[in-house]
Amino acid sequence: MRTLIRGGTVLSSTGAATADVLVDGETIAAVAAPGVFTEADTVLDATGRYVLPGGIDAHTHMEMPFGGTFSADTFETGTRAAAWGGTTTIIDFAVQAKGTSLLSTLDKWHEKAEGDCAIDYGFHMIVSDVNDGTLKEMESCVDSGVSSFKMFMAYPGVFYSTDGEILRAMHKATETGATIMMHAENGIAIDQLVARALAEGKGEPVQHGLTRPPELEGEATSRAITLAKVTGAPLYIVHLSAAQALAAVAQARDEGQNVFAETCPQYLYLSIEDLAKPDFEGAKYVASPPLREKHHQADLWRGLRTNDLSVVSTDHCPFCFKDQKELGRGDFSKIPNGMPGVEHRMDLLHQGVVAGEISLARWVEACSTTPARMFGLYPRKGVLAPGSDADIVIYDPAAEQTLSAATHHMAVDYSAYEGMTITGKVDTVLSRGRVVVDGGEYHGSAGHGRFLSRDLCQYLG
Amino acid sequence: MRTLIRGGTVLSSTGAATADVLVDGETIAAVAAPGVFTEADTVLDATGRYVLPGGIDAHTHMEMPFGGTFSADTFETGTRAAAWGGTTTIIDFAVQAKGTSLLSTLDKWHEKAEGDCAIDYGFHMIVSDVNDGTLKEMESCVDSGVSSFKMFMAYPGVFYSTDGEILRAMHKATETGATIMMHAENGIAIDQLVARALAEGKGEPVQHGLTRPPELEGEATSRAITLAKVTGAPLYIVHLSAAQALAAVAQARDEGQNVFAETCPQYLYLSIEDLAKPDFEGAKYVASPPLREKHHQADLWRGLRTNDLSVVSTDHCPFCFKDQKELGRGDFSKIPNGMPGVEHRMDLLHQGVVAGEISLARWVEACSTTPARMFGLYPRKGVLAPGSDADIVIYDPAAEQTLSAATHHMAVDYSAYEGMTITGKVDTVLSRGRVVVDGGEYHGSAGHGRFLSRDLCQYLG
Amino acid sequence: MRTLIRGGTVLSSTGAATADVLVDGETIAAVAAPGVFTEADTVLDATGRYVLPGGIDAHTHMEMPFGGTFSADTFETGTRAAAWGGTTTIIDFAVQAKGTSLLSTLDKWHEKAEGDCAIDYGFHMIVSDVNDGTLKEMESCVDSGVSSFKMFMAYPGVFYSTDGEILRAMHKATETGATIMMHAENGIAIDQLVARALAEGKGEPVQHGLTRPPELEGEATSRAITLAKVTGAPLYIVHLSAAQALAAVAQARDEGQNVFAETCPQYLYLSIEDLAKPDFEGAKYVASPPLREKHHQADLWRGLRTNDLSVVSTDHCPFCFKDQKELGRGDFSKIPNGMPGVEHRMDLLHQGVVAGEISLARWVEACSTTPARMFGLYPRKGVLAPGSDADIVIYDPAAEQTLSAATHHMAVDYSAYEGMTITGKVDTVLSRGRVVVDGGEYHGSAGHGRFLSRDLCQYLG
Amino acid sequence: MRTLIRGGTVLSSTGAATADVLVDGETIAAVAAPGVFTEADTVLDATGRYVLPGGIDAHTHMEMPFGGTFSADTFETGTRAAAWGGTTTIIDFAVQAKGTSLLSTLDKWHEKAEGDCAIDYGFHMIVSDVNDGTLKEMESCVDSGVSSFKMFMAYPGVFYSTDGEILRAMHKATETGATIMMHAENGIAIDQLVARALAEGKGEPVQHGLTRPPELEGEATSRAITLAKVTGAPLYIVHLSAAQALAAVAQARDEGQNVFAETCPQYLYLSIEDLAKPDFEGAKYVASPPLREKHHQADLWRGLRTNDLSVVSTDHCPFCFKDQKELGRGDFSKIPNGMPGVEHRMDLLHQGVVAGEISLARWVEACSTTPARMFGLYPRKGVLAPGSDADIVIYDPAAEQTLSAATHHMAVDYSAYEGMTITGKVDTVLSRGRVVVDGGEYHGSAGHGRFLSRDLCQYLG
Repeated sequence: MRTLIRGGTVLSSTGAATADVLVDGETIAAVAAPGVFTEADTVLDATGRYVLPGGIDAHTHMEMPFGGTFSADTFETGTRAAAWGGTTTIIDFAVQAKGTSLLSTLDKWHEKAEGDCAIDYGFHMIVSDVNDGTLKEMESCVDSGVSSFKMFMAYPGVFYSTDGEILRAMHKATETGATIMMHAENGIAIDQLVARALAEGKGEPVQHGLTRPPELEGEATSRAITLAKVTGAPLYIVHLSAAQALAAVAQARDEGQNVFAETCPQYLYLSIEDLAKPDFEGAKYVASPPLREKHHQADLWRGLRTNDLSVVSTDHCPFCFKDQKELGRGDFSKIPNGMPGVEHRMDLLHQGVVAGEISLARWVEACSTTPARMFGLYPRKGVLAPGSDADIVIYDPAAEQTLSAATHHMAVDYSAYEGMTITGKVDTVLSRGRVVVDGGEYHGSAGHGRFLSRDLCQYLG
Repeated sequence: MRTLIRGGTVLSSTGAATADVLVDGETIAAVAAPGVFTEADTVLDATGRYVLPGGIDAHTHMEMPFGGTFSADTFETGTRAAAWGGTTTIIDFAVQAKGTSLLSTLDKWHEKAEGDCAIDYGFHMIVSDVNDGTLKEMESCVDSGVSSFKMFMAYPGVFYSTDGEILRAMHKATETGATIMMHAENGIAIDQLVARALAEGKGEPVQHGLTRPPELEGEATSRAITLAKVTGAPLYIVHLSAAQALAAVAQARDEGQNVFAETCPQYLYLSIEDLAKPDFEGAKYVASPPLREKHHQADLWRGLRTNDLSVVSTDHCPFCFKDQKELGRGDFSKIPNGMPGVEHRMDLLHQGVVAGEISLARWVEACSTTPARMFGLYPRKGVLAPGSDADIVIYDPAAEQTLSAATHHMAVDYSAYEGMTITGKVDTVLSRGRVVVDGGEYHGSAGHGRFLSRDLCQYLG
Repeated sequence: MRTLIRGGTVLSSTGAATADVLVDGETIAAVAAPGVFTEADTVLDATGRYVLPGGIDAHTHMEMPFGGTFSADTFETGTRAAAWGGTTTIIDFAVQAKGTSLLSTLDKWHEKAEGDCAIDYGFHMIVSDVNDGTLKEMESCVDSGVSSFKMFMAYPGVFYSTDGEILRAMHKATETGATIMMHAENGIAIDQLVARALAEGKGEPVQHGLTRPPELEGEATSRAITLAKVTGAPLYIVHLSAAQALAAVAQARDEGQNVFAETCPQYLYLSIEDLAKPDFEGAKYVASPPLREKHHQADLWRGLRTNDLSVVSTDHCPFCFKDQKELGRGDFSKIPNGMPGVEHRMDLLHQGVVAGEISLARWVEACSTTPARMFGLYPRKGVLAPGSDADIVIYDPAAEQTLSAATHHMAVDYSAYEGMTITGKVDTVLSRGRVVVDGGEYHGSAGHGRFLSRDLCQYLG
Repeated sequence: MRTLIRGGTVLSSTGAATADVLVDGETIAAVAAPGVFTEADTVLDATGRYVLPGGIDAHTHMEMPFGGTFSADTFETGTRAAAWGGTTTIIDFAVQAKGTSLLSTLDKWHEKAEGDCAIDYGFHMIVSDVNDGTLKEMESCVDSGVSSFKMFMAYPGVFYSTDGEILRAMHKATETGATIMMHAENGIAIDQLVARALAEGKGEPVQHGLTRPPELEGEATSRAITLAKVTGAPLYIVHLSAAQALAAVAQARDEGQNVFAETCPQYLYLSIEDLAKPDFEGAKYVASPPLREKHHQADLWRGLRTNDLSVVSTDHCPFCFKDQKELGRGDFSKIPNGMPGVEHRMDLLHQGVVAGEISLARWVEACSTTPARMFGLYPRKGVLAPGSDADIVIYDPAAEQTLSAATHHMAVDYSAYEGMTITGKVDTVLSRGRVVVDGGEYHGSAGHGRFLSRDLCQYLG
């Protein structure tokens, strides 16, 4: 079964070229000059379109348990929405509960995802309980294709690890070559600011932002970098939102340390002004780290250009406004933390191309090629090359669309970008050679997506 | 006429994949999974070999006039030596003499090169005489495919431009989108230190290094960056050799300014200790900026990893020890400035891969893909993609070789790396589809190489 | 009762002048040109000598409880030794035990010190137990002349405060104008490194240094600075020992934050090589932060010159080698932390003048004037001015002395500087007008020293 | 002849104390507690007043030749105005004309000043013509009490020195211990921007600011610092106006280099908005460096607090609006550069105390003590100590005054601060023991002021 994508502008992380892409089965057979191949079982016309490697969203939370509820998208709905948006791989988080083992956690997440996903998926492991057993299991996780471990400097009593625990896990990461991913906010200090605000009767959603000042993200980022330096562990800062944290990352990278960072579309487009919306509307924008003052946005776009921010992920973790976000009415600290986004990442970053913030090549790099290399999936993913999985997006750079909960495919009752009009839209999506989205219709199926056993980070210097 | 390169490991700036490359005429027809193509007019077996885009040396000086003599390699000998070393494109410098026009200079350099080159070539323009006419001509140069202009903060009375002249040229660069390349050493201050040393009777080659302290390269680099900031011009620092200059570049890049830099193999491998060799041997290592103390080497390798140094070029500018370097016996300031290197860049950087300093992907990126993008040649050059020129190197990563003037192909009577043994060696080189080096034999011809009309830098943020 | 100090070179924090000092009772009556006063009850000839304000040691621990033992000097022996060394004021630390109140702690320390001290003394308060009561009591402490509160980011389970507790105390400091003093080492991470070393069978004293890397002092210092920034509290980093911490302080000070730091003579003169002395000799040098690699010394001297290190204190906390230090044979983590030093600070810093590291004015400033201003004692202390307490040192800049446990006056069985010969020696010391040391004899008495109720820091910008 | 200043609050660079000051002849005999001295030939009541060392203005230009005219204040009128404002010492600039010698220049300036000055004065030497003779003469200048040499990176063709010339002078400064003072603006680049603006028909005074961007002050400051580092010379940046330059100074100072800087009141209070005043009013504010955007003011006040700006001088260089400033109507480049200010420095900085920007101690330090130490006048000047010259200001901190050309004593027809009301006013001024201003009347006389032979900078580390 061969598919020929003909006449498009093929994009890579370094530029664009006019070429045809020949798919044979699940993988790419060739990238060729126009005319080299003239027939195939299926021919897709990509004239006037971009042809690019499918997006990789390295940070999603499908059906994640959080404070007694679950994030609203299941692996089924979430990966389908991802596919609609041109993302053909997600890396989700298996979440160790205190007192449980990493491997049983991994089993559990395999059960959750298996048979449900529209696109391929991998797992990072959230380590909540550092002990001799856990550390030993980290080795098995790496062997099982889970080569990155997320830790939290925030959320004391839930996911929080002490600096000593982080150090232990980092030593193990150094030993195995695994990457430590860090939620870098000083949660101990933040909890004190939260208590202080609540004691003063300040319960509105905007307080979520005010009690998590950017300095405390900068601080935690610096601290994580120091701990990584002391131990030699590779470090990946997740969902970086603040200029202070970016400065710390940039300095470490200048010094050649293996430090990487991602940001998310919400930090590039939204701000604390959204958190301050009246009538509890701000709750829709409650995530951690919080949305920042607007001036951080320019810093983050610049960081994307300079590669101090290497990756754009979504931290997709949707909670419905009704019933879920509402748990925190009057007490912002009870609002489930998270925002929907997996569907719109490719579009929102393409909008950055339209606005002149980043180049086309950088779009592909930050959304696909780099996450593939960062998380040990390259060249299987992240590039249109012979032998690579045929995860391919045909993108119409001229189409206009308006983002809205009324039209999106995520299982959540609001959009963080409601009414925003952008230029560019996915036409067709292939996942391992199969057309899953085309012509405004969904042709995928739950279970098509397979688990991706990942190698180590390919950037280590 | 189709050539199939079969069985190799195809390298790109992002990684490696097993694939075949089909060449049709002068360009690449396809990159395909093994087996997709089975026959061609010529089949080259690349099993166990790397297949990579031909090297691009963005900084050479063939038959350059300097102080009454000429650099020893002609376009014919120099490009042949380049081909031997896996470099399939050079960008040389047309040198405006004071009182002459840019366009007549360009004509002159076209005459010099045309019909002589073994591989493709482009030109940068050295601007020595900034005036209304020159500035106007810069526009024509850009239109003629010469989109980068080198200026000198060193060599007063020869190439030196004042900060005011630099500012004028930068304003024109901003207007046209051209890149200003800068030799960043404070030549005015250096000349004073040189005069002081000579007055004290210090005439040995090592004084060349001692009178050009790294602080004065750092200073000039910072100054060039500031002038570029004031005018908005893209800036490319040539042959960066000192940690101080690297720090200035890194800071500007962190801030998102369009500032780029190259270093050269001699700064990665050699040091002021070579300049201090007795019996005038040090003269072989006289180039500007000078070789630095050894500790700078680690900084430069780190800069290569962090991409604060984006490109590795050679600044190939050979002068024979006999008759040429000897002009400066007793007075180091009269030693012609320059070293040979065009033949060994790919090998010496591959040695960096062997030593664990850089990755394979970074090797290709710094030596081929980035210079192509930096100087408006991509995707024609710098990548193995359909439609690209078939400039291809088949490289044996396991071969050993010893560098020596006895065996090199450059027209100069010494090697700066005499006796150094390295791992890795070029097997076969194709230039626009034609095999020019293979099996230890040269199959190229003067005149095969064509002038490359270049676009603007593709990195501008 | 009038005393005239005649013929000396009077030093201040800005320079030197030839002048006489007239003391009337406990205070200075006048500083006058030679000849203005010709007679007094007592005339001290200071010809060829410096006359300077008595030293202020802002960091001592007399009879401090630590791990079941007590530091070896009592207030009586310790202040006597201080006087011998030209220090006429100490600020010691009252140590809150967990579960006790600040005010009862203060009472206890008043009891310890009252009637025992040879020289005047003040107290800082160590806060080990942050709670509503403690915070409220901080106000009373300030009212009682204890305007600085020390907290620990090290020693979990003993003095350690969480970042949340630090934040609470800092908010109270901002409210009251008090200063937070910080022991800035990441004790949580360090304890993990200690456990790891012990588990590997590494129990020697040098491990004390190796498990407390300078990066973790730098980290904690940065973190403290950030917490101070978030709250607005004045911050004083105690016993800074590492270049990394100095860099953090320098940056904060450049930005105008109210951040100050002290270092100690042991960090200026000793190194981890002392900790590595064989036969458990290294135990004599166990203090926290630990002695660093030698290259930090030059950074610290530079910091003293630049005023990024504003104060030199001793962290005097002696434990006898026999019976006390020996508690940690085989397990470095059980060695009592602390070194003797109160007697030698003025001499060791004068030696810095002799060596050209600091100026005479800076000697007086860092050892007397600045601590007085920093801790709310100026102009009562820290300057020779009318109305100031007549705490005066007559110092012979040409005398030589050899430091040794055989001759020192501290109640500890070893000297950290055994056998070191230095230039400069105290001749005569006056405490509030009374000669307490003169001609190699001690004329002071326990109980002469009085408690100093201190104002707020006088440096706040 | 003894004068007793009784009942005041005596200020120093470290704080305040209640004390009396006894003057005997030209110098201070004693500083004493109230009541120690009860009678004198003259008793001045300073109750409720500050008593402080007279101000030292280290940067004035009396009757300076500039572009065919002279600055409007003579030594007589200028020093009288200084005295009115509490400044008892000026250090003016002798200006070498190209082709003349330093010593003949110095003679000329001695002639200008001798017999004309109301207060003591010293000279810096402006070096415009660096050659063997000049360099040799620098030694004689130092021997003659002129220990600081000003050079210009601006004003090509007038005062401008090349980097090579600067290097030569710095080498000589290192040899002699003299200080190099630097006007740090990149005049070569600026002249190009000026030419460009004029060519575009932009001739208004605000263009003076727009063509001298702060980046070019930052650049020149960095360059001067590098040249000083290469040579080892002490460096003092005059009239620093821009955040970029401050950052460069702060970094060099953090690194312990002997780099110092002054700012001026106009940069603390005025901005480019003044330069943009209509009807050529902006010409009143034309000085170099130019007034900056307002946000620089906060940086400069912070720099004053952090001591990165060590001194406040005035760069007093008045030109009358009528006839002088008017030379540049239509062509801003012809407006004489300079502003009046010598009379108001003490008041404007006291206003900084009132506004909470700096402390009282810092006021005295930046305006008197530090310039004395910086320029080799301490303890003769800059402090109220026995033996020091009795240059004393009695200052009423509560008085209000309104600045105006109608009431000031400078020989210039406008005030840069017209109508500004401030708190604090000089009551009485003594110059070397003589009351020169008191009760709103002038009692001084031309010729009372004497030339001050200065030592070297006392801050060198």
